[in-house]
Amino acid sequence: MGNNKITKRSDDYSEWYLDVVRSADLAEHSPVKGCMIIKPYGYAIWELIQKYINELFKKSGVKNMYFPLFIPESYIKKESKHVEGFAPEIAVVTYAGGKKLEEPLVVRPTSETIIGESFSKWVHSYRDLPIVINQWANVVRWELRTRFFLRTSEFLWQEGHTAHASKKEADERALEMIEVYRKFAEEYASMYVFVGKKSESEKFAGADVSYTIESMMQDGKALQAGTSHMLGQNFAKAFSIRFMNENKESEYVWQTSWGLSTRIIGGIIMMHSDDDGLVLPPKLAPISVVIIPILKKDEDINRKLLDLSSNIENMLNDICDIHDIVIDMDTDKRVGEKLYEWEKKGVPVRIEIGEKELSDGAVSIFRRDTKEKNIVAINGIRSYVDNLLIDIQSNLYIRSKKLADENTIEVSSFDEFKDALSKDSKFVYIPWCGRPECEENVKELTKASTRCFPLDQKGYNHESKCVICSEKSVGNVIFARSY
Amino acid sequence: MGNNKITKRSDDYSEWYLDVVRSADLAEHSPVKGCMIIKPYGYAIWELIQKYINELFKKSGVKNMYFPLFIPESYIKKESKHVEGFAPEIAVVTYAGGKKLEEPLVVRPTSETIIGESFSKWVHSYRDLPIVINQWANVVRWELRTRFFLRTSEFLWQEGHTAHASKKEADERALEMIEVYRKFAEEYASMYVFVGKKSESEKFAGADVSYTIESMMQDGKALQAGTSHMLGQNFAKAFSIRFMNENKESEYVWQTSWGLSTRIIGGIIMMHSDDDGLVLPPKLAPISVVIIPILKKDEDINRKLLDLSSNIENMLNDICDIHDIVIDMDTDKRVGEKLYEWEKKGVPVRIEIGEKELSDGAVSIFRRDTKEKNIVAINGIRSYVDNLLIDIQSNLYIRSKKLADENTIEVSSFDEFKDALSKDSKFVYIPWCGRPECEENVKELTKASTRCFPLDQKGYNHESKCVICSEKSVGNVIFARSY
Repeated sequence: MGNNKITKRSDDYSEWYLDVVRSADLAEHSPVKGCMIIKPYGYAIWELIQKYINELFKKSGVKNMYFPLFIPESYIKKESKHVEGFAPEIAVVTYAGGKKLEEPLVVRPTSETIIGESFSKWVHSYRDLPIVINQWANVVRWELRTRFFLRTSEFLWQEGHTAHASKKEADERALEMIEVYRKFAEEYASMYVFVGKKSESEKFAGADVSYTIESMMQDGKALQAGTSHMLGQNFAKAFSIRFMNENKESEYVWQTSWGLSTRIIGGIIMMHSDDDGLVLPPKLAPISVVIIPILKKDEDINRKLLDLSSNIENMLNDICDIHDIVIDMDTDKRVGEKLYEWEKKGVPVRIEIGEKELSDGAVSIFRRDTKEKNIVAINGIRSYVDNLLIDIQSNLYIRSKKLADENTIEVSSFDEFKDALSKDSKFVYIPWCGRPECEENVKELTKASTRCFPLDQKGYNHESKCVICSEKSVGNVIFARSY
Repeated sequence: MGNNKITKRSDDYSEWYLDVVRSADLAEHSPVKGCMIIKPYGYAIWELIQKYINELFKKSGVKNMYFPLFIPESYIKKESKHVEGFAPEIAVVTYAGGKKLEEPLVVRPTSETIIGESFSKWVHSYRDLPIVINQWANVVRWELRTRFFLRTSEFLWQEGHTAHASKKEADERALEMIEVYRKFAEEYASMYVFVGKKSESEKFAGADVSYTIESMMQDGKALQAGTSHMLGQNFAKAFSIRFMNENKESEYVWQTSWGLSTRIIGGIIMMHSDDDGLVLPPKLAPISVVIIPILKKDEDINRKLLDLSSNIENMLNDICDIHDIVIDMDTDKRVGEKLYEWEKKGVPVRIEIGEKELSDGAVSIFRRDTKEKNIVAINGIRSYVDNLLIDIQSNLYIRSKKLADENTIEVSSFDEFKDALSKDSKFVYIPWCGRPECEENVKELTKASTRCFPLDQKGYNHESKCVICSEKSVGNVIFARSY
């Protein structure tokens, strides 16, 4: 795997991230600019994410289906804000089957338009509503500066699309789906997130309202980990998606769309990992447990070590469920090398078994998150590991919440505000005016943008003024630098 | 769902197929020429296929990963036969991010080339081998004449790619994977298949040997349902994929690739369905059982009907496992309409519960494949349905094998050969010379091509002459018209 050294976070946070990705063998650059190759270990994380999200979607009445990769260029142009937002990023097929195409085809950056066209055919009466569908797909948004998982020209995601008979129902669906993402982020990815509404300048091109989950990385920057949009009737009007209501009047439908991408893998890596490499929450760890028999020259002892290893594997099999257990029987590497390698891969639990452990009837169990090691009697391993995996999952969440709590500050003057965003990178919580010009101004001065108006506006004072420009505030907002 | 009539197979087999797809709501045309929209019910079949194939792959040591959608044009051109085979079908991105690209990007028609480039970086020593990977992806091959699932410009598939230190190991892997496909086709899709080797003109562009599974549809035409290729060292030489062997000599790797696509859904539909619509093998049926309470105006009776329905659902839940059970509580439709609708969707087992059934303590159970109906006592439902699902699965396979057996004939003259391929469409089994000119000649005269040299060459006489051209034969081959 080449160079094994991992840069320290305190030395160079960006380099550290690249080193973690590389040393865990999660992804690598491809010869196509801005596109990455997701290696088996990285892809296995994505498969776990898909599995859990599919389960949550199923409970929420979502059906998976599949729309074409290509979108006629004229469709993208039908919703004016949408085309404005996506035009700079699109990739266009102009030749196919040896001929120049009459109409160029856009490689989907997102599928509201082509799905809107279908909805207009599927919806006739209120009885055809709601429609609640999702697709797992690759999308392309041409990016100049890319970074593994966080920003790539092609990425994998799911995009959900719904149509409803009333504004109320669409509002509720948009909120329901951001709640699904929150649940996934917190309970599966152990990522504490702020749930809120995007500002006018940060919302999705074509939406009335965008909801987001935003998470604080270890460097204090924000990562947008999933979004859910109330599209209003914008696409319904552009694509003429109408239905007869119960009173036989023709109405436009109300729509939502929501997506979560491989970007969240970048967030998970950045959130939990340390100077020794990747740290994964157990629910998203392709390998839950690695067992390392410390092999000797003595065949008799080795046989016993391997027997014990596979006994332990059997004991743990149902605890680990869909996750793998690996017995590392490699004889080429030194033990130290092996231990370090599994650390870099972020396997939550490591069990070491040597001669001493054999005779003591107890093994040494290491947890990746805190790097603590304990001696555990063999007959107690099963329940110990079971609890340990739960504990790691929750400890990582607590750590993530603590980070966010400690680095989110309220300020009351623009000087304090600038300070918090220049010296350290913090989440800064202020009453804000909501004006795009004000946000643009802040961006130029501090590189920070609004992340969201948290849904929970507890403590917001309706009389308060914007901390930046002193205009009337519309709500408390979080400003931060972001990925 | 529009017009509900299904054309009879005997009237127009092609129209029948379209009607089955439409009336089961599996897919529909998209505004992008040649690309289809896979509807939730069709996509659910694909998800079941993915699940089982992933399980078979895992046992076979295959790891999933993901490579970019785009391939630099120069890569496609590196292996001469490969580019020759795919050039007429490729779609090309020439603009991205608002600029003309310096090098056009091909939307992958298959990924041997971009994966070959990666293999050349990953492989250094024999210790890095074998590499056995797979990706689930969309691919694009521009087609003029398309047909739902069977042939579309964009389709979904898995493509496996391996690299090995020896020819022997690659040979074995290519055969191992065609055996995985055979197993999947026969045990999951209930499709009897011929397993064999492709002729020179039919093999994959860039392969030394292509293996295939070929299945006979009800009209006697063949459907290629999966292929596995021994690529020899062709891509290794084009992409310089070399390794140091144990004697420290540099060698080219030996490679294989293998794929199975959404096309197999077309095969499953064509193979099993009848004049009343879709018929599905239970393992690939998104819904195993539909329960239809025959609701009346009497609320008291209806409550009892619904209670019994959900009791039955609970009894069957673990039998149906990953498949759904639906209780059809729709009150808008007439019973006859409902029954027909579920027939058209190919749900293997239908349970009807009316007033009479309530008082008799027995329900009426209908099996979709043979359309037989039986009265079954409620306390016996569980084991009855369990056995019934197994029986339907195996009955469909037996039916499919019987069709193939009855319509595969051996002939000994070119006249008989032409007869068998013009009047009826049969699989014709003959000793053949293997020459591309001979195959081309047959294609012009009969529209048939070689499907495969069956791996089992039992009864082949090495002295025999080609039935078409009287040259020396190289093996027994199957000729047929194909999709």
